[in-house]
Amino acid sequence: MQELVTNLGILAKNASYKLALLSSEEKNQALNAMADSLEKHRLAIKSANALDLKLATDLSKPLLERLNLSDKTIDSMISGIRDIIKLDDPVAKLITSKILANGMELKKVRVPIGVIGIIFESRPNVVADVAALCLKSGNAVILRGGKEAEHSNRAIMDALSAGLAQINFTPEAVQLIPVQDRMAVTYLCRLNNYVDVIIPRGGESLIKAVTDCATVPVIKHYKGVCHIYVDDSADISMALSICHNAKCSRPSVCNAAESIVVHENIAPEFLPKLAELFHANGVEMRADESARALCPSMKMANPIDFSTEYLDLIVSIKVVANIEQAIKHINKHGSHHSDAIIANNQLSQQAFTRQIDSAAVYVNASTRFTDGAIFGLGAEIGISTDKLHARGPMGLNELCTYKWVGKGHGHIRV
Amino acid sequence: MQELVTNLGILAKNASYKLALLSSEEKNQALNAMADSLEKHRLAIKSANALDLKLATDLSKPLLERLNLSDKTIDSMISGIRDIIKLDDPVAKLITSKILANGMELKKVRVPIGVIGIIFESRPNVVADVAALCLKSGNAVILRGGKEAEHSNRAIMDALSAGLAQINFTPEAVQLIPVQDRMAVTYLCRLNNYVDVIIPRGGESLIKAVTDCATVPVIKHYKGVCHIYVDDSADISMALSICHNAKCSRPSVCNAAESIVVHENIAPEFLPKLAELFHANGVEMRADESARALCPSMKMANPIDFSTEYLDLIVSIKVVANIEQAIKHINKHGSHHSDAIIANNQLSQQAFTRQIDSAAVYVNASTRFTDGAIFGLGAEIGISTDKLHARGPMGLNELCTYKWVGKGHGHIRV
Repeated sequence: MQELVTNLGILAKNASYKLALLSSEEKNQALNAMADSLEKHRLAIKSANALDLKLATDLSKPLLERLNLSDKTIDSMISGIRDIIKLDDPVAKLITSKILANGMELKKVRVPIGVIGIIFESRPNVVADVAALCLKSGNAVILRGGKEAEHSNRAIMDALSAGLAQINFTPEAVQLIPVQDRMAVTYLCRLNNYVDVIIPRGGESLIKAVTDCATVPVIKHYKGVCHIYVDDSADISMALSICHNAKCSRPSVCNAAESIVVHENIAPEFLPKLAELFHANGVEMRADESARALCPSMKMANPIDFSTEYLDLIVSIKVVANIEQAIKHINKHGSHHSDAIIANNQLSQQAFTRQIDSAAVYVNASTRFTDGAIFGLGAEIGISTDKLHARGPMGLNELCTYKWVGKGHGHIRV
Repeated sequence: MQELVTNLGILAKNASYKLALLSSEEKNQALNAMADSLEKHRLAIKSANALDLKLATDLSKPLLERLNLSDKTIDSMISGIRDIIKLDDPVAKLITSKILANGMELKKVRVPIGVIGIIFESRPNVVADVAALCLKSGNAVILRGGKEAEHSNRAIMDALSAGLAQINFTPEAVQLIPVQDRMAVTYLCRLNNYVDVIIPRGGESLIKAVTDCATVPVIKHYKGVCHIYVDDSADISMALSICHNAKCSRPSVCNAAESIVVHENIAPEFLPKLAELFHANGVEMRADESARALCPSMKMANPIDFSTEYLDLIVSIKVVANIEQAIKHINKHGSHHSDAIIANNQLSQQAFTRQIDSAAVYVNASTRFTDGAIFGLGAEIGISTDKLHARGPMGLNELCTYKWVGKGHGHIRV
């Protein structure tokens, strides 16, 4: 298996040099061929998926839902690729340009990263989404999915390969590692000569396993333990509306709120209203002592609740004495993803936006806005909770690096 | 030791939250105090350094030179800090700003990374340089130097701490890990909760050791195996001048050329002239068969020579049949640092700048220009040979990350 993974790496690296030189038109043709081929292979993909679902006897309901490829999911895989065709090509764009004191011209130019390794779980549609984003940004990609989606992933990969073959496009632009050997992940994550970055997408244990073994740089797309802090200067009806939106509009996504932190001065008025609202929406509330003193119907929270990503209609609730305590709590227990303050006091707003150490910080707005398309970055490969290279939504630009190009006329350093 | 390192990490993380909020004036005051204190502790630093030099019985001459703190080196440590005072503060700068379709204001703002771990060898002046760069960019720093410079590093650290103490500045902004336990490096590199990035500065074995054990993201400052490719369209006198500058002007630095790659059409005229020039400058030439057929005085190269960073007056020389072969050779054997083409043919220039996968690519100019100050980035913490986050010279801006700040008026996602 080590030899197989190394060979995939060598092929991908060679392919990446070709991909880096392609015009936007050539890349868009390949994307079109991929989309058409998915449509053509719809039945094969669906029957492979049916097999995976049949074999998945021990998966929980949410995991089964993620594994399931309905016609609607396949439609959105196809339309997703067509949307990426419309996005601006990030490659070869000039970032900065200057003439140095010695007269030499120096440009900073955006270029593809090279070879991207994606390790993911459950959702087979990731294969198509990621392949399209990497191809458009001029990168070769090596994918490694979970065993539970083995046949679905392979069927989608076969469809993409068939599409690329039809227009004689470099077949090694997109490759899938077979799942039979768990060590394949380790080999891939240590392939420093051929793989430039690993992006793990999945649960905590997957991310930890990848981080532990990787020598290739990793950009983590970690959990979203997002907070809404309700300051004592908050507009209560605004706070209720935002808490409802952040918790209830789509609880299964990483930018949904998992914890509400409330200033003690506003808690007596705010919390009973929040309890009523959340109760009406079927949200289970796990609260600290102070919150329960005001709303005895709330359940008692365990310490672990305050750093848990529920991805469900559950929320933790904490009362704090002041904004400093709120900031400290969020920086310690959050996942540095997205956090919001509801406040009219400008000093509170400023303290929060400056001191919260997260990818996205909101004032009087829902955490649900953290999204590549909404931020104007186009489709996203995910939301980075790391601080290096890309923070927050990671789109086509963030799938690139840069190089410095200096043009002289015999310039030497004196 | 693990507990000690963890505690340093916790202190650094807490300090980083304070540093992130400081004004440029406050940071510059601290830098001034550090510079003044180095001047005041000059004698203590010199006697600590004398002790290290006395104990260093088994160090090679170049390593002894790096270890030695002359008055001139101490002067430049001090003036280096004063230069950093003059640089623009990178923190809180607006990178982009837009109004989203829903009317929400979204800003992308530059912020410090947080806690930076620096693992370095030999040169004790790194302590002062790195402390100043990290402080100016609002980061806390934890330094770990080599055993050979133990007393010098400690004396410089004590001087910096004394300076900071005098103005009651957060003492944990700059910390040094004692050298007695080698495991300290491993503990530091796995302190994901408190350390945001590790930057190793040193030889190949140090970088490999760090990369192997780290779970914290690493930005590698690796070796510079820099090439000059002389195309068949090159101006020969320009090629000679640039080869001389890149190899001989300062052979001990990472942007010096280590290998000359020559197109076979120009080799018969160019190589004898190059041999004469390099011979006159005391450069040892290690060449492949084709080059030696033209210049028998050159030594025979071993395969390893073509990926060796000599940092000395030695150079490897290779003849290629065409530019494609040159590009392939450089991408395979180089270190993705800095490479140059000497060519008048614009197609050759373009092929080289587009296809060479290095941080800096030059046309008709010396590789020696890869430098933060020359590129206009200010003082540099080093030159990244990685592709993520920072590529090439890494200055104050590259010691920062960004956060997204959204301001709404009750905005929810519909």
